[in-house]
Amino acid sequence: MASGKDLPVSPLALPLPELPPVPGVLLGTGVAGIRYKAREDVTMMAFPAGTTVAGVFTKNQCPGAPVDWCRAALKGGKARALVVTAGNSNVFTGKAGRETCKATAAAMAKLAGCKPNEVFLASTGVIGEKLPTEKLTAALPAVHAVLEPDPWQHAARAIMTTDTFPKGATRTAKIGDATVTVNGIAKGSGMIAPDMATMLCFLATDAKVPAGALQAILKKGVDRSFNCVTVDSDTSTSDTVLLFATGATKHPRVPAEGGAMLKDFARAVHEVLMDLALLVARDGEGAQKLIEIHVAGAVSAKSAHRVAMSIANSPLVKTAIAGEDANWGRIVMAVGKSGEKADRDRLSVGVGGTWMAREGEIVPGYDEAPVVAHMKGREVRIDVDLGLGRGSATVWTCDLTHGYIDINGAYRS
Amino acid sequence: MASGKDLPVSPLALPLPELPPVPGVLLGTGVAGIRYKAREDVTMMAFPAGTTVAGVFTKNQCPGAPVDWCRAALKGGKARALVVTAGNSNVFTGKAGRETCKATAAAMAKLAGCKPNEVFLASTGVIGEKLPTEKLTAALPAVHAVLEPDPWQHAARAIMTTDTFPKGATRTAKIGDATVTVNGIAKGSGMIAPDMATMLCFLATDAKVPAGALQAILKKGVDRSFNCVTVDSDTSTSDTVLLFATGATKHPRVPAEGGAMLKDFARAVHEVLMDLALLVARDGEGAQKLIEIHVAGAVSAKSAHRVAMSIANSPLVKTAIAGEDANWGRIVMAVGKSGEKADRDRLSVGVGGTWMAREGEIVPGYDEAPVVAHMKGREVRIDVDLGLGRGSATVWTCDLTHGYIDINGAYRS
Repeated sequence: MASGKDLPVSPLALPLPELPPVPGVLLGTGVAGIRYKAREDVTMMAFPAGTTVAGVFTKNQCPGAPVDWCRAALKGGKARALVVTAGNSNVFTGKAGRETCKATAAAMAKLAGCKPNEVFLASTGVIGEKLPTEKLTAALPAVHAVLEPDPWQHAARAIMTTDTFPKGATRTAKIGDATVTVNGIAKGSGMIAPDMATMLCFLATDAKVPAGALQAILKKGVDRSFNCVTVDSDTSTSDTVLLFATGATKHPRVPAEGGAMLKDFARAVHEVLMDLALLVARDGEGAQKLIEIHVAGAVSAKSAHRVAMSIANSPLVKTAIAGEDANWGRIVMAVGKSGEKADRDRLSVGVGGTWMAREGEIVPGYDEAPVVAHMKGREVRIDVDLGLGRGSATVWTCDLTHGYIDINGAYRS
Repeated sequence: MASGKDLPVSPLALPLPELPPVPGVLLGTGVAGIRYKAREDVTMMAFPAGTTVAGVFTKNQCPGAPVDWCRAALKGGKARALVVTAGNSNVFTGKAGRETCKATAAAMAKLAGCKPNEVFLASTGVIGEKLPTEKLTAALPAVHAVLEPDPWQHAARAIMTTDTFPKGATRTAKIGDATVTVNGIAKGSGMIAPDMATMLCFLATDAKVPAGALQAILKKGVDRSFNCVTVDSDTSTSDTVLLFATGATKHPRVPAEGGAMLKDFARAVHEVLMDLALLVARDGEGAQKLIEIHVAGAVSAKSAHRVAMSIANSPLVKTAIAGEDANWGRIVMAVGKSGEKADRDRLSVGVGGTWMAREGEIVPGYDEAPVVAHMKGREVRIDVDLGLGRGSATVWTCDLTHGYIDINGAYRS
């Protein structure tokens, strides 16, 4: 993280799409001056009574105080407000960190007219520095006073820390005859690895979905998206994905267990999550290339996923790709180091659709030209066939460049 | 690996010590022209009849053909010769790779007057290219003709690939009243992680030790040394440690199970292994700082080791240290991502002997000056106390710098 210094926008950036209002959701952003000067660092969302919520959090054993807060609040299944701060993660801040969460939720609950455990909190930024609680609580009334349905684009920017571009996605879905919207925004570009592959991600919809069904859809979607993305293998202490469902749009009643009626809605949620996860990989610290790794022929899908992640996290593979070198020997090494079942003499490796090695040997006289051309592009595809079974998996990462060292060797200084 | 291009010598390099002759061992080096031009790339050792051997190899599931060869040969427990080549690893070379091993061992056995399975082989360098067998076998007679007891220093250089300095260590030990010597040479600077933390390492002694006792001593020593060193988390397909015992020096007979009589000998072997492992970390690709990580208070030694390796392999920790930033928040993150038992609120983190965080919170008003001074040095020490139990472990790594990207982004090109 670069202390708010301006970084050049990632060459893999995509433009922020138009994010329409989501019926029931009001947003606002403001300046609390927590760490950054002269930029918005507080983002607020408010939801109507009856809003349900689902959440998935980091598996890091040393999570931030806001993660603990959300985990506890999630048990109620209801949400009325979200407060996000940028610049200080409120991680490893001991009792003071817990007090900050309590005070922030109390102040927000008073403004929103709800219970503190209907307020959700998320913070990212520096670890181990006390978050100046009063600056934050003092900033809330002004933000609350200007809440509106529109400023999704603003919110996508206000939650950024080292991100070089704002990240958003939107879809519509049918529930019965009604059309509902799913919006999402995310931040994150380093310290990104399952679980989870982002720092913060917030989705909201106007569908009316019971909390249990909402949680199942979110969990499945995160497993297929964020948990298939890695930037540097490091797992944030703050990773948080929350999905709020306001129920502001009328549609046939969804049963507690969800079921077939939510099929199209689940697709929309999963597409938004996938869009956002890939945007995070595209903004990987120092990233010059987006890498898609497809592993087939594994003994199981789980095994394929582990092999793919071993390749995606290999510094030697990632530096080779940065150097535009289709060094398939390093891919073989990364397959072998995963510890998963593999047979060197059945292994095949391809880059950009050209098989360079087949069943344990180099393919004699394979055409290097398309491989060389592929490696020069912004998107690199690696295929591995283990030749053992039917398990497959796809994961995404980015290359490891001088930019990563520049960004991460200078933080705090 | 930098294709034999000259890299600046690591600032952490130590001078190669005088390596005395080891009674019974003859060495030679020569030029086969396997990949490099105008440098020695073949190293040979010859041992007298009765020499025993022990070996430890990579756990990578896709090992090179020479590793397979050595594993099989090791079953005999006897050795008469070693042939090491630099520039081509003979990994992922299919049937051709196995034929190369067979032909090399046959040619060497003929020269040494022994069986092929008394010949040990090791190769490092590029993966997936066929090793030109005839160039290698053609070079062997000339090397064999000039074998001498002295050229340990030469051998330490001839086995290098991307190493920026040669690595050797020596000790003496008492077995009864006799003094024996243990010499070791190693190569390796990238693709270094347990198990093992080197690419190639060869030890020889004039002690007479049964193969089983020799294997136990080597295994224990490797676990405490090479398996506690990581450069980039990537695990070589060629990692090999071999220990040859010629028995050329008379001493009381060692029983098959080894035992107390070998205590001092085991110490000497372990010290040589530890010296060499740290030299490998000091030559980590792009390394500017040697990092020692000590974890205490874990629920077990194994758990402590895993936490320490999680810190040692974290790109964010390693880049922070490259930037001379004592970013203990990233250390907390790396503890948490290990998945090992940890309690954020009992965790303490120190750098260079100064505790910066104690029991889950920053130490108020800790003196930053000695920490800042420590971070500017060549050797950085990190202490973590998990506050849970009595398990402890120490591991070593190096920082992650622009040099690593330079070296690994340009290989093969």
